[in-house]
Amino acid sequence: MQDVPLSIADLVRYGTTVHGGSTVVTWTGAEPRRTAYAEVGRRAAQLAHALRELGVTGDQRVATFQWNNQEHLEAYLAVPAMGAVLHTLNIRLHADQIAYIANHAEDHVVIADASLLPLLAPLLPRMKTVRHVVVAGGDPGDLAAEGVRVHRYDDLIAGRPEEFDWPVVDERDAAAMCYTSGTTGDPKGVVYSHRSIWLHSMQVCMSDGMAVGQADYSLAVVPMFHAMSWGMPYAALMSGSSLLLTDRFLQPAALADMIAAERPTMAAAVPTIWQGLLQELDAAPRDVSSLKRVVVGGSACPPSLMKAFEERYGVPVLHAWGMTETSPLGSVAHAPAGAEGEQRWAYRLSQGRLPASVQGRLIGAEGRPMPHDGESVGELEVRGPWITGSYHRDDDPAKFDDGWLRTGDVGTLTPDGFLRLTDRAKDVIKSGGEWISSVELENQVMAHPAVAEAAVVAVPDPKWDERPLVAVVVKEGHSVDAAGLRTFLADRVARWQLPEHWAFVDEVPKTSVGKFDKKTLRHRHADGSLEVVDVRD
Amino acid sequence: MQDVPLSIADLVRYGTTVHGGSTVVTWTGAEPRRTAYAEVGRRAAQLAHALRELGVTGDQRVATFQWNNQEHLEAYLAVPAMGAVLHTLNIRLHADQIAYIANHAEDHVVIADASLLPLLAPLLPRMKTVRHVVVAGGDPGDLAAEGVRVHRYDDLIAGRPEEFDWPVVDERDAAAMCYTSGTTGDPKGVVYSHRSIWLHSMQVCMSDGMAVGQADYSLAVVPMFHAMSWGMPYAALMSGSSLLLTDRFLQPAALADMIAAERPTMAAAVPTIWQGLLQELDAAPRDVSSLKRVVVGGSACPPSLMKAFEERYGVPVLHAWGMTETSPLGSVAHAPAGAEGEQRWAYRLSQGRLPASVQGRLIGAEGRPMPHDGESVGELEVRGPWITGSYHRDDDPAKFDDGWLRTGDVGTLTPDGFLRLTDRAKDVIKSGGEWISSVELENQVMAHPAVAEAAVVAVPDPKWDERPLVAVVVKEGHSVDAAGLRTFLADRVARWQLPEHWAFVDEVPKTSVGKFDKKTLRHRHADGSLEVVDVRD
Repeated sequence: MQDVPLSIADLVRYGTTVHGGSTVVTWTGAEPRRTAYAEVGRRAAQLAHALRELGVTGDQRVATFQWNNQEHLEAYLAVPAMGAVLHTLNIRLHADQIAYIANHAEDHVVIADASLLPLLAPLLPRMKTVRHVVVAGGDPGDLAAEGVRVHRYDDLIAGRPEEFDWPVVDERDAAAMCYTSGTTGDPKGVVYSHRSIWLHSMQVCMSDGMAVGQADYSLAVVPMFHAMSWGMPYAALMSGSSLLLTDRFLQPAALADMIAAERPTMAAAVPTIWQGLLQELDAAPRDVSSLKRVVVGGSACPPSLMKAFEERYGVPVLHAWGMTETSPLGSVAHAPAGAEGEQRWAYRLSQGRLPASVQGRLIGAEGRPMPHDGESVGELEVRGPWITGSYHRDDDPAKFDDGWLRTGDVGTLTPDGFLRLTDRAKDVIKSGGEWISSVELENQVMAHPAVAEAAVVAVPDPKWDERPLVAVVVKEGHSVDAAGLRTFLADRVARWQLPEHWAFVDEVPKTSVGKFDKKTLRHRHADGSLEVVDVRD
Repeated sequence: MQDVPLSIADLVRYGTTVHGGSTVVTWTGAEPRRTAYAEVGRRAAQLAHALRELGVTGDQRVATFQWNNQEHLEAYLAVPAMGAVLHTLNIRLHADQIAYIANHAEDHVVIADASLLPLLAPLLPRMKTVRHVVVAGGDPGDLAAEGVRVHRYDDLIAGRPEEFDWPVVDERDAAAMCYTSGTTGDPKGVVYSHRSIWLHSMQVCMSDGMAVGQADYSLAVVPMFHAMSWGMPYAALMSGSSLLLTDRFLQPAALADMIAAERPTMAAAVPTIWQGLLQELDAAPRDVSSLKRVVVGGSACPPSLMKAFEERYGVPVLHAWGMTETSPLGSVAHAPAGAEGEQRWAYRLSQGRLPASVQGRLIGAEGRPMPHDGESVGELEVRGPWITGSYHRDDDPAKFDDGWLRTGDVGTLTPDGFLRLTDRAKDVIKSGGEWISSVELENQVMAHPAVAEAAVVAVPDPKWDERPLVAVVVKEGHSVDAAGLRTFLADRVARWQLPEHWAFVDEVPKTSVGKFDKKTLRHRHADGSLEVVDVRD
């Protein structure tokens, strides 16, 4: 067989010629901007010429600080195809993290949306390696920093050659990078190769992946700075699917208008977006019947949400699992042929089935591989050609186990390859060589009619290693004590899982995105500021 | 990204565990044999142990001489996964060619169906390197040859371990091989790598490929000895599609019964098979409504056949192009979104659109690249990770052009990547630096009401290099002369294409498969045995 490297340059050449008539549509709140892929290809070549002139050579990093829009797509094409590395900065991170990331990646150029300059401007002086900012979609205003030159995107590319002699690369060379948001410790950089992006794009287009094809019009709500928008931009180039990009219009009403007006056939976003859209549609109906499927991932999707979309709007919701480290497409929850009714829903509500290119195994409490029996719990480890094997400039081996990625997700695998996640590894309670899911215990406690909220964390135990501590918020006008809750749990969880340690609190501490802040709870237990009631039989 | 090689062993591990419940069904004429992929996996491991014991090591070749059936599938799994090379012998070739191929590939073992022993027995003494024959599905009878040991398949694998420690391979290592039937010269061996098979399988499963997925039940009519059954066995392992295999029951009535009884969702075969099935269904209707799509390739499909299946039986026919050298999936004719009516048919009747992994270019009469404008004609050359770059033990560079495969097919490419083939390169007439399609000229001549058949070949010309010679069979009871035909053509073809050389014959010589035998026509012209009339204006 011919030794042809898989490369973004070939993807650009293909997508902008054979599918040159497909379009990228950028929402503007008013008249959408429509541009054919052929034109995107010409502008990407111009951008590459401009970046060369700005001194971008070798595998230097070109960062983006952008919404989902046409110019961001042009950077997706130009930067890896010219041999450099596209680095998508997550605009939603804390300023300290963004500055850390830009410095850690040693970004040479930042391409930024004009609408995001208020966020970028105060950060720019802290980005030590950045020499150029290219401002897209508007005026740079008074953006300035020492040693940094500021350019207007359209002026910079204007008049340059519309073709570029893309260099030949090794398919294992870096093409793009994205940092994990890092709830603990510093963000870590994941580097995608030309090979991994090509293979991942094929998976996105496979009928049991996201089935993206030429006849699709794909609405990418998931940000292009968030795990490469789940691979949709490159899959669109590969398949010829047209792309609908939201720019900064992520509000439920804007999304509903966009879908009604543009009639996309598929879409991908996190559950929060779909929840907002559902409420919007319930309040002010729009026609969303063009959607043949939507993909939901990033965190577990509430069953009620999936059922509401399917039953009320006829839109099938595909549950998917992945992470920045997995490119991100890991599993997709297509129910197997023949599954009906509740069994079908059980499959669809799982995190999905691992494809051939993503091997999975479960590592249990003792570091042993656990059986894939749908019952045995372990931390999911994955292996495959689009799974990261290291982090950029980071020697910490803790995230890897003999070449496999430790996902930090805990759950089960069925014999037929379906993944069901029950907890995060850092939250699971390791008790006597067995694991107790904090999330499952929380759900059982919250099933008590007097309980408003309950968060479960592990606390050290001299005999069992760890035992669960339950922090409970009692509903107003109700009352219940630890013994009562323990009795309530008795026939709901295994006897050895019954918690002894209880704390009644006014509110469970939350993170900035509204999740239980278990780190703070553990600290408050450790420093003695949490009042704990111990109950045993 | 992790450096995980793409390998058949991983495909076997995945397909026989995660999709262990999918089934391979072998038609028997009576009760079909049904076996779960999990069991196929255990038997493949047993087969690998047995083959090791027969001395199969390294990249030694294990040949198959089999219909499409479960044991053939087991060889597809076991042989490449153990690091050896699966060599599918084409049972339909002439005995001399089969012997040549087995010797050229240096096959060590042949796995043969008992039903094919009458074909194999006389050949066996001519296969110099074969040391073992393993007979599947019946008794070896008195099969014997000097230096060859004969085994029964089921006896040979019985009792062996049901797991095999598949070796780690380089993804560019040979996994399988298949010889082209070679209408001219000796057959040539195409060697597939683990990498090429993996990538090709993904393409088969892509929604704009053959869209094979877990919910499919795929009927592989195209033989497993013919370009790997168009990739369906490995795609089935990758996706979990169940497989329906015909064994030797390829007669139209058997196929119709099979479809009605087993209700496959997709199928793949050459036009002749579908033509036979259509006639059978028209004569004795069966329920074929389970078929959501059928793929047709191997040679151009008559439009009437495609339309009949779609209009009379509601079965969409997908036209595809490929060859042994292209693994074989080259292009598939999905009409683009928005194409309607006749425009849609024009797309669907083309050879299809090249996918991102198969680059195509047209090389014209002067060896120059031709534009992809849907008009300019050239020989199609292709490049990609599942396109062969050489033949096994063959240094002839004539089939390659700077690393690209010369397909020998002549036609046009549209700007949006659709391929339309008009001729074979060896039949095209190279006249004054331009090409004349023999097939198109034939079609124009045959449009004359007095013409029964017309074959066009190139004859040498001192001024133009080559000019067309038309051999015409006049319909009984009609009469027409060369001048009349030339006048008839005048407003149908470009003036410079008008043929000067005409021969009136009783019949056009045909090959064994019924095609015009242009080689014989050219010889008859060269040795002066063809009476030629020259007409000029």
